Amino acid sequence: MTEIPYKIYLEESEMPTQWYNVRADMKNKPAPLLNPATLKPITFDELRPVFCDELIKQELDDETAYFDIPTEIRDFYKMYRPSPLVRAYCLEKKLGTPAKIYYKFEGSNTSGSHKLNSAIAQAYYAKNQGLKGVTTETGAGQWGTALSMACSYLGLDCRVYMVKCSYEQKPFRREVMRTYGANVTPSPSETTEVGRRILAEFPGTSGSLGCAISEAVEAAESMEGYRYVLGSVLNQVLLHQSIIGLETKIALDKYDIKPDIIIGCAGGGSNLGGLISPFVGEQLRGEAEYQFIAVEPASCPSLTRGRFGYDYCDTGKVCPLAKMYTLGSGFIPSASHAGGLRYHGMNSVLSQLHHDGIMEARAVEQTSVFEAAVEFARVEGILPAPESSHAIRVAIDEAMKCKETGEEKTIVFGLTGTGYFDMYAYEKYNNGVMSDYIPTDEEIARGVAGMPNVE
Amino acid sequence: MTEIPYKIYLEESEMPTQWYNVRADMKNKPAPLLNPATLKPITFDELRPVFCDELIKQELDDETAYFDIPTEIRDFYKMYRPSPLVRAYCLEKKLGTPAKIYYKFEGSNTSGSHKLNSAIAQAYYAKNQGLKGVTTETGAGQWGTALSMACSYLGLDCRVYMVKCSYEQKPFRREVMRTYGANVTPSPSETTEVGRRILAEFPGTSGSLGCAISEAVEAAESMEGYRYVLGSVLNQVLLHQSIIGLETKIALDKYDIKPDIIIGCAGGGSNLGGLISPFVGEQLRGEAEYQFIAVEPASCPSLTRGRFGYDYCDTGKVCPLAKMYTLGSGFIPSASHAGGLRYHGMNSVLSQLHHDGIMEARAVEQTSVFEAAVEFARVEGILPAPESSHAIRVAIDEAMKCKETGEEKTIVFGLTGTGYFDMYAYEKYNNGVMSDYIPTDEEIARGVAGMPNVE
Repeated sequence: MTEIPYKIYLEESEMPTQWYNVRADMKNKPAPLLNPATLKPITFDELRPVFCDELIKQELDDETAYFDIPTEIRDFYKMYRPSPLVRAYCLEKKLGTPAKIYYKFEGSNTSGSHKLNSAIAQAYYAKNQGLKGVTTETGAGQWGTALSMACSYLGLDCRVYMVKCSYEQKPFRREVMRTYGANVTPSPSETTEVGRRILAEFPGTSGSLGCAISEAVEAAESMEGYRYVLGSVLNQVLLHQSIIGLETKIALDKYDIKPDIIIGCAGGGSNLGGLISPFVGEQLRGEAEYQFIAVEPASCPSLTRGRFGYDYCDTGKVCPLAKMYTLGSGFIPSASHAGGLRYHGMNSVLSQLHHDGIMEARAVEQTSVFEAAVEFARVEGILPAPESSHAIRVAIDEAMKCKETGEEKTIVFGLTGTGYFDMYAYEKYNNGVMSDYIPTDEEIARGVAGMPNVE
Repeated sequence: MTEIPYKIYLEESEMPTQWYNVRADMKNKPAPLLNPATLKPITFDELRPVFCDELIKQELDDETAYFDIPTEIRDFYKMYRPSPLVRAYCLEKKLGTPAKIYYKFEGSNTSGSHKLNSAIAQAYYAKNQGLKGVTTETGAGQWGTALSMACSYLGLDCRVYMVKCSYEQKPFRREVMRTYGANVTPSPSETTEVGRRILAEFPGTSGSLGCAISEAVEAAESMEGYRYVLGSVLNQVLLHQSIIGLETKIALDKYDIKPDIIIGCAGGGSNLGGLISPFVGEQLRGEAEYQFIAVEPASCPSLTRGRFGYDYCDTGKVCPLAKMYTLGSGFIPSASHAGGLRYHGMNSVLSQLHHDGIMEARAVEQTSVFEAAVEFARVEGILPAPESSHAIRVAIDEAMKCKETGEEKTIVFGLTGTGYFDMYAYEKYNNGVMSDYIPTDEEIARGVAGMPNVE
């Protein structure tokens, strides 16, 4: 049998030339986006003031299985892709598990995460449409950083609304964006109507993703030649991020490896969806079977404790409604929650897959997540992002189960990025002052009570 | 002709199994280290209280050309090596140069730099000798981070004396080391005699590398089962870092690429020496000819403005004397200097090569270095460390010369690491408040006046 190297790299010639759209293989399609005014499925034309044309097409297309990746995007991908599929030999040894653990590492580009895969695609289509710039929001900061990089590469203006608590906690994350020429505004801000409204209603608020989204959408609509772009939640993002899963599958196939379990952290679903899409497709077509596990923070548990139904995607209720597992658009995770994965809902495709029993979900507490992060870092030589460490937690849990049962399962997880800009959270953990927070049933009920009355 | 990919990765099977010791091919050997008490060449036995046995052998061996890399170290290398040799297509296009630019990128491991190559080697030999732990100093923090990682992997205790100004400016760098279980002390400190002496003499000092070295050496000598290790300057470090140059050469040979110019940033010489060693060896054996360029900060210009002679390696004068280009062990770069490359001297091998006209040197000012860094980051997708950006500066300068002359030179430079923990410096640059400082002739003269009177 061929020996598996520590890191499996694909040749440039083996890189995927098309993205894969898992919706094409779903029998139960994700529910359509609704126009918030009419509550009817939203149309291409209704979305045009907010989104780029080509991206709307991708967003609304449930039938086309493969989309060609434009040459310019493939060239950009070559700068930092293919990303390595790493065999976690050192972690396996440390755990003493018979399981075989692999992780797809997306953090070796400057933006520090997988977000760049979609950022360059969205920036490319904006540029191609002759736009001047794009607006967006960022929470933990990975998306904003990725978009800044992509825009600077293409010469597009980039306006980022950064959730205020993150803006203040992560001055260096902000500085990376500025280094890439982006304009960064803490949200909520006085620069938009919705921002001013929220500030008036909740003075001293530290902001939320839902609120920053509303501001970025308003900003895009109010400026000539601008559109709004988003780093997660949308189906187009899953499409672009399918590059992760496609590369993973090619690398595994090269060595005849068949995974038993595929694990990803889940916030809005961008990485998880991208990683599992090609494997879910296989399963939906009856070609293979896998166990898919979404891992979310216990402090923001949309899949495990949210409701499946139509909800607002943003606080200001300016975006289309999506059918998803959600905690309600007013839900804000406890201030003790570090890192990202703090969005109140979940991408519609993933929500549907979960609803249909194809993908399971687990919620984990953050101290146990950081424990897994440090254990991983000390043997695998990568300091993981808090978000990615959710997947590490469950990968280790599953590997330890194998140790008990003696099973030699093959576990693949997504390592979405690095934690260089999250050291304040590591510091808390290192000093033993990190706390866990699990919302009460009452808090969850209060959140979902804000959902619109739409079936 | 074969098309050159964006990134040339070696297979695991192509990775070097031996380090290369360039001293073996030098006719003019570097001058020996001297015992500071007797001023005679220092012996194996005299070095044993401070350094690990195996490392002393490597340090003193001017004859053996190749040293086997122990399997355990090769396995660790596989976690993050081979590092990519990147063809800077995007930068070339941006510059509009006919030059072909390549860089060997050493920053894709968590420590963020090439320092890990020697850290794992030194930690391995310490562990193998049955030691409990090691002490060291760190300036910008890359070395301390790398050593913390290596020690945590091997289960060795790690005590880091971190130059105080860096400790205060870079709390997150410190936190990474703590995450890897290291004990980090700002230097000068009250924990050593030499630290107390320096604090008494210069109250409020923000420390220097020379001073932190003295403290770390004293700490090693005063603790049972500890030795001192060092991330640059020493010949053993160049030996371990030769992995950079060896991999670079294998990758270039694979595609029949012959570099004209090889560029590295130069502080103590660890990366530069490692990168150029195999190529210098070829040239010394008459097999090829290259232009080697060492790039140093104008604010700490040991090669371009220092004196070639014996000097103290540390402020406390407890270390052996080395013959090198030096600004004097009392020289401290201006506080306006950001980043590393602030050591007063230069590795003896590199000093000798410069003295013999084999390697040239250039000094560059930091605003022009950050200008190059930002230009590079925006097209190449890597946010470079300030240290590495010195090499970028000169690579761009040389590429622009080619643009003028039309020459299609092949330029290779070392990109030693990432700048994630240097955003305070980028912030200064982004805000237009970064300044340059070039020491006056009087300051240089005052520094070298402190050199010992030894020929």
